[in-house]
Amino acid sequence: MPTLHHFPLDPFCRRIRLALGEYAVVTTMEEEKPWEHRPGFLALNPAGEVPVLVDDDGTVVCGILAVSEYLEEVHGSGERTLLGNTPAARAETRRLVSWFDGRFNHEITTPVLMEKAVRRFLPPEMGGGPPDMERVRTAMKRLPGHLEYIARLVEERGLLAGDRPTMADLAAAAHISVLEYLDAVRWDGHDSAKLWYQRIKSRPSFRPLLADRVRSINPPAVYSELDF
Amino acid sequence: MPTLHHFPLDPFCRRIRLALGEYAVVTTMEEEKPWEHRPGFLALNPAGEVPVLVDDDGTVVCGILAVSEYLEEVHGSGERTLLGNTPAARAETRRLVSWFDGRFNHEITTPVLMEKAVRRFLPPEMGGGPPDMERVRTAMKRLPGHLEYIARLVEERGLLAGDRPTMADLAAAAHISVLEYLDAVRWDGHDSAKLWYQRIKSRPSFRPLLADRVRSINPPAVYSELDF
Repeated sequence: MPTLHHFPLDPFCRRIRLALGEYAVVTTMEEEKPWEHRPGFLALNPAGEVPVLVDDDGTVVCGILAVSEYLEEVHGSGERTLLGNTPAARAETRRLVSWFDGRFNHEITTPVLMEKAVRRFLPPEMGGGPPDMERVRTAMKRLPGHLEYIARLVEERGLLAGDRPTMADLAAAAHISVLEYLDAVRWDGHDSAKLWYQRIKSRPSFRPLLADRVRSINPPAVYSELDF
Repeated sequence: MPTLHHFPLDPFCRRIRLALGEYAVVTTMEEEKPWEHRPGFLALNPAGEVPVLVDDDGTVVCGILAVSEYLEEVHGSGERTLLGNTPAARAETRRLVSWFDGRFNHEITTPVLMEKAVRRFLPPEMGGGPPDMERVRTAMKRLPGHLEYIARLVEERGLLAGDRPTMADLAAAAHISVLEYLDAVRWDGHDSAKLWYQRIKSRPSFRPLLADRVRSINPPAVYSELDF
C-alpha cells in the first residue's frame, strides 16, 4: 500500500488526499510536521516539504507538483482523469489549480493557516506565539472576490473547469476546507459558490478530511456538516 | 505560429523559451510587463501572470504549470521528452523543477530580480525606488548551498535528473541566467556547477536568451559568454 506523508491542515496535502480518494487508491497516512525538520523526513525529501508519496515499488514522489502529476499519470487514464482528456482541457484545469495554489494560497490560506494554527506549534525563535489577528482579517477580506470567481465559473460550466470534477475543484475545495476548519469562511451572499462547495464536500473522497482533528484546534460545527 | 507572452527576465518565461527551443517549436515572442496590469493581457490571463502561450488553434495556456505540461504533452513524446520516460523519472524531474521554481526562486531569484530590476520599473506607490542592496546580499549568500546541490547531482548523474537534459536543467539554468544577467553569480569554488551551467548555456536553445537586453539594465560581459 502506498504511504502519503502529509500534514492534515496543509491545503496541498488535502488536495492529494482528495485525489487519492477520487482515483480509489487506498493509502496509508503518515502525519508529518514539516517545520520540525525531522531527519528521517529530510532523507525522503531534501526540500522538507509535504506531500511526499512513497509508492509500492519504493518510488518516492516529492512535492505537490510531482505527486499530483504522478497520480494522474499512474491512475488517471480515461474516465478516471482529474485533469481532462485534451491538452486544452488539461491546460484549463492546471490554470485553475495554479489560481488556487498560487494566488488564493498566497492571499488567504497561508496567512490564515500561519496565524491561526502553525504559529501555536512553532518555538518562539521560529516565529511561534499568539496569532496576528489583523493579518487574518486582511486575508479574509480577499475571500469574497475568489468566491465570486468560483460562482462565475460554476454558473457557466457546472463545476470549475467543466461539468465533471477535476483537480481544480479539489484544489479550491482543499483551500476552502482549511479555512472552514479554522472558522475563516463567511458564505453570506455567495450562494452559487456555497452550492458548489456543498457538492464537492459531499463526495466520498471528502469524508476522511471531515474527520480530521488537529491537536488543540477544534473546528466549528459547520466544518463536518454537509448541509451547512 | 504560437505566441508566447513573456517578460525577458522572468525565470519561468525563460524556462519556457528554453523548452520551446528544445522541442523545436518556432514561436512569436510578445513582451509583457505583468505589473502594468494591461487590460488586454488580463483578458488573456485573469491571474495577470506570465508566461501565457497562445497556440495556433487559439488555445490559451496560462501560467508556468499549465504551459510547461502542455508543451510536454503536445511536443514531448519519445526522444523529445523533457520530463523523462517513466512516472518515476518524471517525478524526479518535477521534484527538481519545484526545488528551483520554489525554494531557489523564493530565496534568491525573486529578491534579486525585484531589487536589481523590477523596482526601477515600478511607480513609487507600487514599491518603485532604489534597490535594497542588503536584501540582494542576503539572497546571494544562499546561492553557494544551491550550487553545491547542483554539483552533487551532476557528479552522480551527469546532469540534474539523469544523463540527458530535462526540464530540471532548464529550470535551474533559467534561474541562474537571470542572476547572471543581474551580475549576482560568483562561481569561485563551484567548478562542477559551473561546468554543468556552461554545458546547458552552450545549447542552441539558450542563444535567444543570451541576446536579451532589458531597457536600462546592461548585463556584465560574462552574461553572453559561453567560456566564462
